[in-house]
Amino acid sequence: MGSYTHQQLEEFLSPRNIAVIGASPNNQWFGNILENALKSGFDGQFYPVNPRTDEVRGIRAYRSISDLPDGKIDLAILLVKSSIVLETLEKLRKKGITNVLLVSSGFAETGEEGRRMQDRLRQYCTEHGIVLMGPNCLGFMNLQERVSAFCGGAVEGELIPGAVGVVGQSGATSEAIITKILKKSVGASLYLTTGNEAMLTVEDWMEYLVYDESTRVITCFVEEFRDIEKLRQVAFEAARRKIPIIILKIGRSAKGRKVAISHTGALAGNDNIVDGLFKQLGIVRVETIEELAETAVIFSRCGLPKGKGLGICTFSGGLSGLYADLCEKYGIELPSLQEKTIQRLEALLPEFARPDNPLDVTGSGFLQGLNEIVRSMLEDENLDIVAPMFIPPQDKDDPVGFLNESYMSLIDTAEKPVVPIVFREMTDYAGEYLRDRGLYFMEDPDTGFKAVSHLIEYAGFIRRFREGSSSASCC
Amino acid sequence: MGSYTHQQLEEFLSPRNIAVIGASPNNQWFGNILENALKSGFDGQFYPVNPRTDEVRGIRAYRSISDLPDGKIDLAILLVKSSIVLETLEKLRKKGITNVLLVSSGFAETGEEGRRMQDRLRQYCTEHGIVLMGPNCLGFMNLQERVSAFCGGAVEGELIPGAVGVVGQSGATSEAIITKILKKSVGASLYLTTGNEAMLTVEDWMEYLVYDESTRVITCFVEEFRDIEKLRQVAFEAARRKIPIIILKIGRSAKGRKVAISHTGALAGNDNIVDGLFKQLGIVRVETIEELAETAVIFSRCGLPKGKGLGICTFSGGLSGLYADLCEKYGIELPSLQEKTIQRLEALLPEFARPDNPLDVTGSGFLQGLNEIVRSMLEDENLDIVAPMFIPPQDKDDPVGFLNESYMSLIDTAEKPVVPIVFREMTDYAGEYLRDRGLYFMEDPDTGFKAVSHLIEYAGFIRRFREGSSSASCC
Repeated sequence: MGSYTHQQLEEFLSPRNIAVIGASPNNQWFGNILENALKSGFDGQFYPVNPRTDEVRGIRAYRSISDLPDGKIDLAILLVKSSIVLETLEKLRKKGITNVLLVSSGFAETGEEGRRMQDRLRQYCTEHGIVLMGPNCLGFMNLQERVSAFCGGAVEGELIPGAVGVVGQSGATSEAIITKILKKSVGASLYLTTGNEAMLTVEDWMEYLVYDESTRVITCFVEEFRDIEKLRQVAFEAARRKIPIIILKIGRSAKGRKVAISHTGALAGNDNIVDGLFKQLGIVRVETIEELAETAVIFSRCGLPKGKGLGICTFSGGLSGLYADLCEKYGIELPSLQEKTIQRLEALLPEFARPDNPLDVTGSGFLQGLNEIVRSMLEDENLDIVAPMFIPPQDKDDPVGFLNESYMSLIDTAEKPVVPIVFREMTDYAGEYLRDRGLYFMEDPDTGFKAVSHLIEYAGFIRRFREGSSSASCC
Repeated sequence: MGSYTHQQLEEFLSPRNIAVIGASPNNQWFGNILENALKSGFDGQFYPVNPRTDEVRGIRAYRSISDLPDGKIDLAILLVKSSIVLETLEKLRKKGITNVLLVSSGFAETGEEGRRMQDRLRQYCTEHGIVLMGPNCLGFMNLQERVSAFCGGAVEGELIPGAVGVVGQSGATSEAIITKILKKSVGASLYLTTGNEAMLTVEDWMEYLVYDESTRVITCFVEEFRDIEKLRQVAFEAARRKIPIIILKIGRSAKGRKVAISHTGALAGNDNIVDGLFKQLGIVRVETIEELAETAVIFSRCGLPKGKGLGICTFSGGLSGLYADLCEKYGIELPSLQEKTIQRLEALLPEFARPDNPLDVTGSGFLQGLNEIVRSMLEDENLDIVAPMFIPPQDKDDPVGFLNESYMSLIDTAEKPVVPIVFREMTDYAGEYLRDRGLYFMEDPDTGFKAVSHLIEYAGFIRRFREGSSSASCC
């Protein structure tokens, strides 16, 4: 494992001049690197190295590492065959280049011989103080600094700087994760792939993100941990700073564990131990990429609720029942309304409506606007989160807009998270409308309620942690 | 309950001349009816009845029911207050109109008095042979016949005639259901809302759909059943005809059951009994609107697999592990590959790839095209469904298109369902591409694998049913 300082890693993630060893016009790697850098707004420079050409994709190339300008390169990306990686590192070191992103595969993931090669690689890096990401990874994006050293081709969405950090042991999977997060218009701080983790592990990067000031939510895709003690320490510090850690960890199934072993050469453990550990450390475990993204978004946009009670307000009895079932599935409490709330609602709603939680305001109740209804729920002491119905307008002139607008003014001053539940299909305009107001909203109720349950559980963990940590000094 | 003939209901669902009693320019009901009819391609005529005007929304109105043209009206939609419904029915009957869609609320769902009113309504309809849908419902759409008598305002998507029937006790929820189905470009045959079910129940309409020639998949949103014996008979006949029934039944939670009672005045039962009954009858139970729609689509587009084994092919170890975990969660078997398949794959894939299920073809394996890889999986006798990776192209000129194209030619002759798994975000073009080829595809793996598990389980039920039914005459 790597034992680098925070400053070393900060420098690793902020290069201005990047050499790309093995950049070739014959495959997609260097093209992807350039395209991602362009998208990120990178204004540094690339220095392709290729023994057979003076130019790759319109950029001046160098025949060898020794030809590179002296003292200028602050990161080298290696795309060369695994068999020549060690000698390449030696050449880079002689040139004074010790920050290396090793993309090449062909190490521990290929079997015993590859594993031995990776051991030699680790030994070399340790002896010579080389900061190494990889092998068998896709690189990183530093969205806050507008730097990208990333050779994958599947990250979509605008590379908006934001508060969510993403670390993944699998390149393709983490590309799907960062894309889902960016498409929800939640910006990211850093996106890091670790691959085989010869030196830098997912635990190292989690530690980095905890101390990184721009990161407020940490998300990870993990096949296997390598340093449980470090994970423990990182989780403790994250809890102290109220930074949630959300992890999609594969290996629940025997097949999944087998895959994890063969993929990045990780050691697969007992999954129940992982579950127990996560619970103890307040780590949020998710099961799918979609759930990970939803959970990251709710943590980015909502404060922590003071208690466990959710209040739901819809205009449909059928949906009320459906939501009640989903809440039970995810252990979300739907407390009864206070007597004063029931009386207020009885005065507001049609005669035949029966104020309850979930609240069915009925079609005609809804048409008068939700202002007073949502206000009375926000003032109900049994409720800690309020989830009112939201009808997506097509555009700003859509008459349904007023139904949502009626309760938006309450949200700024509300001391409880307000989570609109989208009825019927989402529109682009409505998505932007809710995002501009900084709101998390439920589009797919199944994943949405699961995200709400994570928010509630994490809030409970933080309360217990704060009570406990006034006496204890560590976990 | 209603005891109508199939022909009576067929006529009820195919009106040409529709009177709308209580059509008003002051609310949205009649406007919605007209808009839905226009979208459906309805070329019949509406006859609004309103004592205070000669025209509603540009259509000639009649001051009273007695003013309506004689012998012409074949359906009346009632939008009047519940207190005058009975006298209105009497006027309609005198005019020879006995097909009635009763939209008005204010019956059993409002409490004891409303329940008594609904009892009188039922008695009246029974005595006078009135075919009644409702009260407290939104009406219906007959997409096959291009007729709509529907007053909800939230159905989106093109009203394509197709093979999926949708019945819902809740109006708003079923609008969300039919919209999700239509948005997936799976056409619908009939869309029916039943509301309080004074006469026609969800069981009646399920029976109708089983015998309706255009319907091949039946989906329902149910708060409570009223006639378990009928449900049993319908399910038996559906199994005989290999028509899957997919039901979203609320009431798993105590809150959900409470809601069901107050919403449509239904009697709520023990949910475990429902689970057991569904299992016995081969009814597919789903938990969310999204899962219902996905399951309807997979049944519409895929034949039944011969066995339980799924083969997955991706280019990412991380995704392989994730999918393996999801398959275990939903009880989907991922059998080992046959020795001959492993040998074929070893020859096709890079040296370091290890043929297994899920199969990680690795990045470079994928780039050569999946033709032979998918073929060898289709020819593996351990596998009954094959799910290969699919990368959504932006348009027909997108170079990634060839990766998918490489295995499309195999699908027409394949005797196994092929279910592409979408990697990264779906595009409009790719959605159409897959739909044009009649393929079910997984976009959200969680719901997608759950739909696959329903397909596998239902196929097993049908095999057992066919073996059993050669001796038994009924369930």
